[in-house]
Amino acid sequence: MKKYITIALVLLAFSVKAQTVQSPSKELTLDFKLTENGRPSYTLTYKTKPVISKSLLGIYLKGDSDLATNFKIDSIGNFTFNERWKPVLGEQSSIENHYNQMTIALSQTTTKRRVNIVFKVYDEGMAFRYEFPKQPNLNYFIISDEKSEFNLIGNHKAFWIPGDFDSQEYTYNETLLSEVDTEKLDLNNGIGLKRIFGKYGVQSPLMMKTSDGLYLNIFEAAVVNYPVMHLDLDTKTFALTSHLVPNAIGDKAYLQASCVTPWRTVMVSDDAREIVSSKMILNLNEPSKITDTSWIKPMKYVGVWWEMHVGKSTWDYAGSQNAQNTESKELIASGKHGATTENTKRYIDFAAKHGFDGVLVEGWNVGWEDWFGNWKEDVFDFTTPYPDYNLAEINAYAKSKGVKMIMHHETSGSVANYERHLDRALELMKKYDYPAAKSGYVGRIIPRGEFHDGQTMVNHFNFVARRFADYRMMVNSHESSRPTGYHRTYPNYIAAEAARGNEFNAWSNGNPPMHETILPFTRLLGGPMDYTPGIFEIKMSHYDKTKKEQVHTTLAKQLALYVTMYSPLQMAADLPENYEKYPDAFQFIKDVASDWQESKYLEAEPGDYLTVARKDKKSENWFLGAVTDENARNTEIKLDFLSPNKKYKAIIYQDGKTAHWEKNPINYEIKTMTVTSKTRLKLVLAAGGGTAVSFVPIN
Amino acid sequence: MKKYITIALVLLAFSVKAQTVQSPSKELTLDFKLTENGRPSYTLTYKTKPVISKSLLGIYLKGDSDLATNFKIDSIGNFTFNERWKPVLGEQSSIENHYNQMTIALSQTTTKRRVNIVFKVYDEGMAFRYEFPKQPNLNYFIISDEKSEFNLIGNHKAFWIPGDFDSQEYTYNETLLSEVDTEKLDLNNGIGLKRIFGKYGVQSPLMMKTSDGLYLNIFEAAVVNYPVMHLDLDTKTFALTSHLVPNAIGDKAYLQASCVTPWRTVMVSDDAREIVSSKMILNLNEPSKITDTSWIKPMKYVGVWWEMHVGKSTWDYAGSQNAQNTESKELIASGKHGATTENTKRYIDFAAKHGFDGVLVEGWNVGWEDWFGNWKEDVFDFTTPYPDYNLAEINAYAKSKGVKMIMHHETSGSVANYERHLDRALELMKKYDYPAAKSGYVGRIIPRGEFHDGQTMVNHFNFVARRFADYRMMVNSHESSRPTGYHRTYPNYIAAEAARGNEFNAWSNGNPPMHETILPFTRLLGGPMDYTPGIFEIKMSHYDKTKKEQVHTTLAKQLALYVTMYSPLQMAADLPENYEKYPDAFQFIKDVASDWQESKYLEAEPGDYLTVARKDKKSENWFLGAVTDENARNTEIKLDFLSPNKKYKAIIYQDGKTAHWEKNPINYEIKTMTVTSKTRLKLVLAAGGGTAVSFVPIN
Repeated sequence: MKKYITIALVLLAFSVKAQTVQSPSKELTLDFKLTENGRPSYTLTYKTKPVISKSLLGIYLKGDSDLATNFKIDSIGNFTFNERWKPVLGEQSSIENHYNQMTIALSQTTTKRRVNIVFKVYDEGMAFRYEFPKQPNLNYFIISDEKSEFNLIGNHKAFWIPGDFDSQEYTYNETLLSEVDTEKLDLNNGIGLKRIFGKYGVQSPLMMKTSDGLYLNIFEAAVVNYPVMHLDLDTKTFALTSHLVPNAIGDKAYLQASCVTPWRTVMVSDDAREIVSSKMILNLNEPSKITDTSWIKPMKYVGVWWEMHVGKSTWDYAGSQNAQNTESKELIASGKHGATTENTKRYIDFAAKHGFDGVLVEGWNVGWEDWFGNWKEDVFDFTTPYPDYNLAEINAYAKSKGVKMIMHHETSGSVANYERHLDRALELMKKYDYPAAKSGYVGRIIPRGEFHDGQTMVNHFNFVARRFADYRMMVNSHESSRPTGYHRTYPNYIAAEAARGNEFNAWSNGNPPMHETILPFTRLLGGPMDYTPGIFEIKMSHYDKTKKEQVHTTLAKQLALYVTMYSPLQMAADLPENYEKYPDAFQFIKDVASDWQESKYLEAEPGDYLTVARKDKKSENWFLGAVTDENARNTEIKLDFLSPNKKYKAIIYQDGKTAHWEKNPINYEIKTMTVTSKTRLKLVLAAGGGTAVSFVPIN
Repeated sequence: MKKYITIALVLLAFSVKAQTVQSPSKELTLDFKLTENGRPSYTLTYKTKPVISKSLLGIYLKGDSDLATNFKIDSIGNFTFNERWKPVLGEQSSIENHYNQMTIALSQTTTKRRVNIVFKVYDEGMAFRYEFPKQPNLNYFIISDEKSEFNLIGNHKAFWIPGDFDSQEYTYNETLLSEVDTEKLDLNNGIGLKRIFGKYGVQSPLMMKTSDGLYLNIFEAAVVNYPVMHLDLDTKTFALTSHLVPNAIGDKAYLQASCVTPWRTVMVSDDAREIVSSKMILNLNEPSKITDTSWIKPMKYVGVWWEMHVGKSTWDYAGSQNAQNTESKELIASGKHGATTENTKRYIDFAAKHGFDGVLVEGWNVGWEDWFGNWKEDVFDFTTPYPDYNLAEINAYAKSKGVKMIMHHETSGSVANYERHLDRALELMKKYDYPAAKSGYVGRIIPRGEFHDGQTMVNHFNFVARRFADYRMMVNSHESSRPTGYHRTYPNYIAAEAARGNEFNAWSNGNPPMHETILPFTRLLGGPMDYTPGIFEIKMSHYDKTKKEQVHTTLAKQLALYVTMYSPLQMAADLPENYEKYPDAFQFIKDVASDWQESKYLEAEPGDYLTVARKDKKSENWFLGAVTDENARNTEIKLDFLSPNKKYKAIIYQDGKTAHWEKNPINYEIKTMTVTSKTRLKLVLAAGGGTAVSFVPIN
């Protein structure tokens, strides 16, 4: 009886006062409280500054019931977690996962349904998710909405892109929250398929800076069997609310208890480097489900790809003729096809000569004559090469040269078609020993009515990773939903594009110089990006005098991106003939590592600059990348990350004296010097410029 | 110049007078005419009786344009076609395809778009379809609706089931058209998933009889890349209009010119036998696309199946425990599982002993603990057997006995899941030399929002047939959209259920005695039905005294169904132990053929009775089946189908003197007599009864 009273008192106490959990550093404080009508709410405080004011949490079910009101607290569980784990590939060989957890077990007085809200507080941020335990009154259920609020304290500066169910391929807008308005955007931006959902909808990760110098980031982790979360913004109160991507009939998610939602994350720090270097998103994902990961390897690759973007050749074999719908079924070669046996051998030779691991070939398979824009279902079969592409010959040739071929699977958004051909596609890859494929999702999704970011597609992308794992193969998806750390669980999901990549510079208004200073604070928090850097012929007028398009960086900045844009899969995207014109600069791409022992974010300001140093996983070499936005920048870097008792030969690839991303982008200079950990290195970055440095120990 | 004038005059003439095409017999007359605002219309006349009064035709496109108005006639082409072709399997070894065709080439004055309406007039009916030629102004297009009218002349008697996007598993209603009302139906009918779309919606094939004795049937043929057509009825004017099944977002069909719609068919005759025996639907389909058809063979089979329906055993292994969602992932056997190695061997022994070709086993694979009703996506993987089902052992045993195993693929409606596992499922079948699978679609479709009868699913069922053909395997689909002759094109699509099968008698209000007298006039016009006849233990009280359910026929009628319900795949559905109790009656099932040289429909009246004689394709044996509805029936049959110079031993399996489907269903008698083609055979059918006869030449 006494025990009973004690519990009752504790339960009473639960309802009245806030439940608190702090970060290990005690700088971040999360308070949870039920409101009067039993609604879960929380606040977040950094040091003494409020970051998130009282924000409600709740799930709404299809058919008029909710998991948002009439809750009481059944129990509260707290514990501290601290471990180190080793990613298969990564920015560092070992990652610390250290947080304090508070689990609020709730039950609904009206329905007896139970929901746990779990908070994990890290030094650099807080995460929560909803858990639905196995229970009698909740088995299968359909989520009609999730209303998780993030009520911000002020009119922060935000780096935002419009909330869109189908694309993240936008340039970032840097405005106050009060100025967010998707209707004012210029949408003539080269994006093939858009589905903006509202005037004040924005995407996560949403990077912000407060007027008093705090950096905030709102994102999510471990999006598995759930749609992507976008955000609705109230531009007057600065309240953000989760906006889940619907399916064809307006439902958000189909779940079965026991199950969990993705983690909703709020990162906060007064040092931007804490956020850009955070491994919180990875930590919030499940450990690898692949036991033997020996076949998962970093790759640097070249490919028959950029030449199509610049108009030198085409993906299709027969031009505008319709490959799969001509009456004759006969394709007549246009003579401009890029993926020929001969051209591919040229890339293989180039890769072999310069030590690249792989060659990607796009446009190798039948279907490109009529692949985009018609919501066509049977576009590609992923197994039938064009008549001028001899699969067996090419693969034998690559093998003889010690080069791996990288397969390409463009789906055109016709996912139903891809799934029903996937085993056949993978069998073909197995036959020829392909280690990896790049997949693409340019187009409206089939099953029709689905969006790129809905639960169906999230499940598809994850399914593809798992199926590739069955075959011990890696996948690099483009136009997928943006990663949220699932590559911890399936490390063969080696990279994704899922943001505005370098390719947009070839044929659209491109990516402004600040673009690459923002992506590490947003898209890259979720996983490696196949940005495809390394463009040396910056201006498209090189190919066609009438063209105005260009890459919005200097050449030196293209080199720096190999360090600043983390990916274990890195393309040298430009044409072999262009690299051969600049062999000294090309040397950096050949030298730079792609898997790391350690990473040091030395300087960081979203939208302005980023300087990173990384140590090769397999050697004592270090590499440094520094990038700036449209403003030139001088800085001095301490090399104290280097081993104290070593001398290093530093090769510095930097912007030339007259370099400027627009006026003189190819102007660069290369200096060699001997440095130690005591050296202070001056970096001089042009407008839209960058610096890349390699450090090799001298005996 | 002169030629020009002539054409102009001809074109003028087109617009004014009707264009006519008649059947080869000249008994059926189709008149086509454009209305004043350029709308296509037709009428149909049988002998001198109008059958269809002026009915409009037209297609509506998504986004406000149509292919229904403002047409002019560009040209008219007529020709006669007559050929014989040989089906791989069928009711007869050779089929005549004889019709007169009229192609009306139309162009829209407002858009220059072109549409052909093609009419084929056979002796027993008329078919039309829309053709969209390759053209500049119409490439990819989305059909928002098709409005093809069939304006009937009077208040005919109709055999109808409610228009439903997901199911055809209804009992037939026999009412006047004016009495059609889906809201008055008792829907407590055992159907797992229904989606009735309107008060006056009915399904095709719609069988009717006019007050002056004409038989009418409205249906469709060659439903390929298009949704199923249901019908909207005006119960006052007796106008019928096509009602296409929508997809998840309300669209009807995604097409690319050149392309065609399915054929819309109107059969008409004053002799019901002309309709029930018609091969028009098959003739309207494309010839076989499978070149080597040697592996497509008829099969008689038994299976671990009915014992689950009667409650003797279960599909699941572990009862109500949730196989794929328990925390432990450990299944604990309930002890009631049907698909055990031991039990399967019992069926293999039985099949071997009695000369059956195959053994079907349902419930062999993991997933049945939680397979239905929750719109669950990952239900089955189609490759993982339960712990008590030893695939290798069973298949080796079957091989040693000369029996083929038939695979079972229940999808639970989760088609996305099935498609992504299909190659693996088929590889497993190949490994063990399975010739065929039965597939099932019980449940709401995934991709969510799709219906069983939409374009997506039509394409799925056809895709599955093609993929099985890749592996030289046959498929028998249950709960698919009803066939419309695609088995001519893919003869490995050997059968389907796609109507209310015998199984409903085990656990619902069942199938009334007239059911099997209607199906040959409706469902079977489109293709073979796996009705699963042969139930000897008619009453479910045999298994459980408290049960009231029963098969609504006599035992003798169950035998007759092997002849009256054409299928090259025939199950002996009852339990081995039940057949062993009635070995004399069972002999007919063992003897009856399932592929035919010739078929003679001797007597036919929809809803009342049917008498059919068929000649085995591989011998001189004939088999006769006669069935009646709830009324007893005496009739006399001329045996003039037998060879004139032969004597035959006739074994007659008929209802006993006190037989009655409800009061005494198992009462039967077997007589043997010698007959010739001159013999007149008296048939005595009990209420809900039937007669089966085998005729074997004597020397």
